[in-house]
Amino acid sequence: MSGESLGIVETRIVTVFDRDDPLRMRSGATLAPVEVAYETYGELNSDATNAVYICHALTGDAHAAGFHEGDTRPGWWDNMIGPGRPIDTDRWFVVASNILGGCRGTTGPSSLNPATGEPYALDFPLLDMADFVEVHRALARRLGIRSFAAVVGGSLGGMQVLQWALSHPAEMGRALIFAASSRLTAQNIAFSAVGRQAIMRDSGFSEGKFLTRGTSPSKGLSVARMMAHITYLSEEAFQEKFGRSAQGGELSPNFGIDFAVESYLEHQGQRFLSRFDPLSYLYLTRVMDYFDPFADPHVIDALAADPVRFLVVSFDTDWRFSTEHSRRIVRHLEGSRVPTSFREIHSPWGHDSFLLEIDDYHATVRAFLDRAAEELA
Amino acid sequence: MSGESLGIVETRIVTVFDRDDPLRMRSGATLAPVEVAYETYGELNSDATNAVYICHALTGDAHAAGFHEGDTRPGWWDNMIGPGRPIDTDRWFVVASNILGGCRGTTGPSSLNPATGEPYALDFPLLDMADFVEVHRALARRLGIRSFAAVVGGSLGGMQVLQWALSHPAEMGRALIFAASSRLTAQNIAFSAVGRQAIMRDSGFSEGKFLTRGTSPSKGLSVARMMAHITYLSEEAFQEKFGRSAQGGELSPNFGIDFAVESYLEHQGQRFLSRFDPLSYLYLTRVMDYFDPFADPHVIDALAADPVRFLVVSFDTDWRFSTEHSRRIVRHLEGSRVPTSFREIHSPWGHDSFLLEIDDYHATVRAFLDRAAEELA
Repeated sequence: MSGESLGIVETRIVTVFDRDDPLRMRSGATLAPVEVAYETYGELNSDATNAVYICHALTGDAHAAGFHEGDTRPGWWDNMIGPGRPIDTDRWFVVASNILGGCRGTTGPSSLNPATGEPYALDFPLLDMADFVEVHRALARRLGIRSFAAVVGGSLGGMQVLQWALSHPAEMGRALIFAASSRLTAQNIAFSAVGRQAIMRDSGFSEGKFLTRGTSPSKGLSVARMMAHITYLSEEAFQEKFGRSAQGGELSPNFGIDFAVESYLEHQGQRFLSRFDPLSYLYLTRVMDYFDPFADPHVIDALAADPVRFLVVSFDTDWRFSTEHSRRIVRHLEGSRVPTSFREIHSPWGHDSFLLEIDDYHATVRAFLDRAAEELA
Repeated sequence: MSGESLGIVETRIVTVFDRDDPLRMRSGATLAPVEVAYETYGELNSDATNAVYICHALTGDAHAAGFHEGDTRPGWWDNMIGPGRPIDTDRWFVVASNILGGCRGTTGPSSLNPATGEPYALDFPLLDMADFVEVHRALARRLGIRSFAAVVGGSLGGMQVLQWALSHPAEMGRALIFAASSRLTAQNIAFSAVGRQAIMRDSGFSEGKFLTRGTSPSKGLSVARMMAHITYLSEEAFQEKFGRSAQGGELSPNFGIDFAVESYLEHQGQRFLSRFDPLSYLYLTRVMDYFDPFADPHVIDALAADPVRFLVVSFDTDWRFSTEHSRRIVRHLEGSRVPTSFREIHSPWGHDSFLLEIDDYHATVRAFLDRAAEELA
């Protein structure tokens, strides 16, 4: 692996909207307070021109790189961010935050509703991709950053990058969008819907009030997560990793865990429970279903006037957001003469590839950011 | 549509194994009584050489064609079976039965266990593809049929056809296998496992004793069915049928049913509850996971000595059991010089195609059975 890990890092929390200055949401609702959990890596230069923003995917968080005190596993994108890594913290000041509606420090549906003193639950307002971006922007203002050299994200993270670039192109030099989509297909929505149904039909869901009622839709959440994991890996990756091998040496027919692939899914489902909130899962997945920025033919006008350089990356075995999803983004950008580089990377690992250290992918990111650095110099 | 519907038909039930002559299962267990629900269409000729057996897929039943008294919808394969249809009842005597472990008249896990007077539930023995075949064979004996001109099935039905042909090749002239597999991939097993988990984790499952405890894992069963339906259609079929259109004219963001595809899945999940049993779902899906006949290198020996003519059909957009699954069956058969015709049919509809009236598919089946009829004449 190129470069090194950052070492010890920590998550901070800052209030970016309050009752006097609430977040005005796309739906018309207002929300306050809004706290944001974030981490930063590297040093902001004196004219604040070397900042890079990281937008996380559905189940990510602000802890993108380095180690929390006492942890043995680093942040979720440690292979990408660090000294000498593709997003090189010797050069860039990197900001990573937890998304609005999340459950890892940023205000979300399980946060206390100041009007009731109880968790919002389903009273939390429905979210839009633009709301995520407004919260990122508010954090940036707090940090004294008016414009980012680059904004980077994969999957739902890439969708935030796209939204940000479309609505506020002057705030970034480059946009890096990996394994993302500008519009979910019916099949994408179908998977998303069934995952939510698994949660909402769990008797422990208690109409969303499980936190105050002492129940939990944990079984539904683990089923949703197991199903989602099937879509994160390619069919060949599943076959290569597990094939039909038995978990315990030899197959012995039963209804529990017999095949290795069953054990993997069970483990993923179980592990997810300790770190994710069923309500956040509902809110965040639903934002993706509705995201469709190019439905507005004028959405790209601001970008044409104030170009951002795009890097769009897909992975050839990703069947959650296939290369066709990336091509669609590229078609819209190129149709408006927005400077866009597109790369389909070969990787056997499917959608999860954007999280992995794949030489061709990392080299592409590094080269694209090298050019950003040259422009700054 | 070519040909006509059969008109009124009815399901009969016959006991094929009893306490004095129980079903001896592959696992070593015995089972009695075993009742089988079946239907027949057309006339058996005097030397009983014109019989065709239909094996159904996961959620099918004995009612393959024609109408039950008072019904407005015909059996599940009415477009395939009837006078003048590809499986022509003017020529063939067609037998269709409900599978062992099913819930549509044949003995299954919700049947009464004579030892306790209560439903078997999870005390029902685990099943093997060979057990399905033994019950089909017992029904055939009851009907005075020693050999079938053809045995036909799609998906799990095709897997039964393959098993029967491998273990008792003298009992059929032709084997027609559509959209099937001789060995599930890790991804196939993963979908299967998550569906079962949705059922078994439903608090209404009550360790399988829901029938006597007055609970029901209906929410889990509907989630399993919704997820399975995603795999039955191709991505393009979902896109063509539903795209991103709203169920109620215009999208109005919420967590319920807003997109048309959500309404479709909800309807499929709901409708399934009235006709299917959660325990049968567990037992039948598990048989598919373990099915792997060619793991035994000698399994094909009997077939080489007593050839059956095979027709193997796949559909180009089927991603549940892709063409590669069919090719694998063909490779094994041809490797042992078993006469095999293979056709990949173009259809936009994915796995469900085997149930649909697709000209090229129906013409292929008709031509293959015409040759069987010529041999008999």
